[in-house]
Amino acid sequence: MLLKLTLLLLLALPTLALDNGLARTPPMGWMSWERFRCNIDCRNDPNNCISEALYKDMAEQLVEDGWLKLGYEYLIIDDCWSFTSRDSRGRLMPDPVRFPNGIPKLAHYVHQLGLKLGIYADMGTHTCAGYPGTTLEQIQTDAQTFAEWQVDMLKFDGCNSNAEEQQQGYPLMSKALNATGRPIVYACSWPVYRGGLPPSVNYTLLGEICNLWRNYYDIEDSWDSVLNIVDWFFQSQDYLQPASGPGRWNDPDMLIIGNFGLSLEQSKAQMALWAIMAAPLIMSNDLRTLSSEARNILQNKAVIAINQDPLGIQGRRILKDEGHIEVFWRPLSKSASALVFLSRRTDMPYRYHSTLSLLNYTTGSYTAYDVFKDEIVFLPSEKTHFTITINPSGVVMWYIYPD
Amino acid sequence: MLLKLTLLLLLALPTLALDNGLARTPPMGWMSWERFRCNIDCRNDPNNCISEALYKDMAEQLVEDGWLKLGYEYLIIDDCWSFTSRDSRGRLMPDPVRFPNGIPKLAHYVHQLGLKLGIYADMGTHTCAGYPGTTLEQIQTDAQTFAEWQVDMLKFDGCNSNAEEQQQGYPLMSKALNATGRPIVYACSWPVYRGGLPPSVNYTLLGEICNLWRNYYDIEDSWDSVLNIVDWFFQSQDYLQPASGPGRWNDPDMLIIGNFGLSLEQSKAQMALWAIMAAPLIMSNDLRTLSSEARNILQNKAVIAINQDPLGIQGRRILKDEGHIEVFWRPLSKSASALVFLSRRTDMPYRYHSTLSLLNYTTGSYTAYDVFKDEIVFLPSEKTHFTITINPSGVVMWYIYPD
Repeated sequence: MLLKLTLLLLLALPTLALDNGLARTPPMGWMSWERFRCNIDCRNDPNNCISEALYKDMAEQLVEDGWLKLGYEYLIIDDCWSFTSRDSRGRLMPDPVRFPNGIPKLAHYVHQLGLKLGIYADMGTHTCAGYPGTTLEQIQTDAQTFAEWQVDMLKFDGCNSNAEEQQQGYPLMSKALNATGRPIVYACSWPVYRGGLPPSVNYTLLGEICNLWRNYYDIEDSWDSVLNIVDWFFQSQDYLQPASGPGRWNDPDMLIIGNFGLSLEQSKAQMALWAIMAAPLIMSNDLRTLSSEARNILQNKAVIAINQDPLGIQGRRILKDEGHIEVFWRPLSKSASALVFLSRRTDMPYRYHSTLSLLNYTTGSYTAYDVFKDEIVFLPSEKTHFTITINPSGVVMWYIYPD
Repeated sequence: MLLKLTLLLLLALPTLALDNGLARTPPMGWMSWERFRCNIDCRNDPNNCISEALYKDMAEQLVEDGWLKLGYEYLIIDDCWSFTSRDSRGRLMPDPVRFPNGIPKLAHYVHQLGLKLGIYADMGTHTCAGYPGTTLEQIQTDAQTFAEWQVDMLKFDGCNSNAEEQQQGYPLMSKALNATGRPIVYACSWPVYRGGLPPSVNYTLLGEICNLWRNYYDIEDSWDSVLNIVDWFFQSQDYLQPASGPGRWNDPDMLIIGNFGLSLEQSKAQMALWAIMAAPLIMSNDLRTLSSEARNILQNKAVIAINQDPLGIQGRRILKDEGHIEVFWRPLSKSASALVFLSRRTDMPYRYHSTLSLLNYTTGSYTAYDVFKDEIVFLPSEKTHFTITINPSGVVMWYIYPD
């Protein structure tokens, strides 16, 4: 018993995706940028600077605290890992003080733990933080270097290049990575540098050359930033939603849960909305000091299962209510679906009344599982009235299956 | 060894304050508005509607969980307590369904617990939520009613009246309360309805007739709202800071710590900045379900002691740094002082370097107590360099005393 819209979405799915067989569900893992930025001050801040020690710390945490088991498998190095110039053979090299053992050793360490390693490069003369970039001529070399280093994912940023160079460079890197023979997930920042929307961005092409792509600005450690990203993605859903699918994902940027700017309600909201968006679940936080509340949200198995649903259909916003409640919906495999009710209110918990019928569900009896409350709600008919209480800047998230 | 600025502030203190001997330090307590608003739906939401049951619940929590011991003594009823019309004698009366035992019984209950009771009225034809207001002719009656009911504080709002009526009404209520012979703390919303600043607001007069006053808009459950209030109060500090002192306080509105919109860092920031402002510490939250983290912040003895310092000198913002760090300072009794370092950054913890000398401290050796970390920092000289780490949307707060 599929929902009407599901069928439409399935029929509308483009058939092409980057043919490397990777990222059939949204990638999950950890990335350094939002939480650790370009902190290279290892002398005064040795535990928090961009260094092999930091990545090893996080790799260990990913395994020890059960992250890997849940799917968080990519440990991703971001900008500021490299030395200020290339080596004598013109190859990228890591900063020798902060990465004394080099990337291959780090990759080996990470692989031994059962994790995969991601690395960062930039299509352009310099990275965003001013380190050596990858010009068109250097793409071949760098792809080969990363493959030799046994890297499993490349985040390819786009600072310091123009539209023409990007138009050539992003497809070229895709081919170069493919040519290495090593399976390397390819994460492109291209669309964000071109405004994120057609006609400047060609999502059909992106799906053919990249496994995931950043469409919009960097996330910051604030609820305003999360809402700004959510607004943009759902306002643009007619363009973005069909572009996404197994092997090709929109990336609204990192999960900032566990840092400093989100309340627990807001943390649940980010997790829920990223699951609806079929977004990569790439945390950027300090796994060494995470609160148990933050960990419970990030490790919520039901939300992860929704995010990782094998159909890989991105969800949509289906309702904006005058009470400042918004409803989001994502079709899932086995005729199931997910609903998220978001409150943009700043007053008090809001009692929201609705029926599944009002949310476009077809005739039938349903069971709803509240993923954060761990509670079951029976809905004998699609017309059964229900009332849920949504907290300010919080969500209620339901996994729904027909009986 | 007083700081230079302290002396200036002390000399500048106006001598007049409302002569009822009350509120010699900023009032502390709990108020229903921000968290429970005008929820009168006791049928569907019995545990959260504005009713004597809610106030009794909170009264019990205030005692049982140690709030009263720490100074949180006022339990304050806000709007929506009253019936939709006055009684046959023209007196305000509570809603008979939601307050079946009436206010005197509730006052008695509250007093037995060792607490004090506050109530809400509005200078105007109707309250902000549309309940019966207090017109000029009714001021005498209402003051007498509240005194007979054994009320200990009046919040006098200003919806539905004009500037002229407020100009007459607020002083009139002050006299009427005084004439009852019962000590009643008088909280005036007058300034907020007149834009909060001179020349429309006469702070000398306010200090003579009110114990505290709302200068600015209602707080909402969000960090944006807290920052907006903080911005306004410190931008206006040249007007507001001298207006405050024992018996007469600026009121930036309720503490929203423990609700839904603030992270823990942001919660510490609100608590710290309210202490610097010598603001009333009036919580509006659900004391029945407060997290232990929120409780620890609200019950921090050092922060409360700073807020309640007997000198009663409001603090000031003394620095806005280009790194988006702001520094706030408040002089305290016994030559002590408080400093708050606020980060408006949204990236990562910021390492801030300074000396007390750069923050206008005079020659000497000092000890700083980090009130949230519960750590001591020794500063052998005012020129001693120190580095503190301030989290995004968070604070470091120091209580400083000369050695």
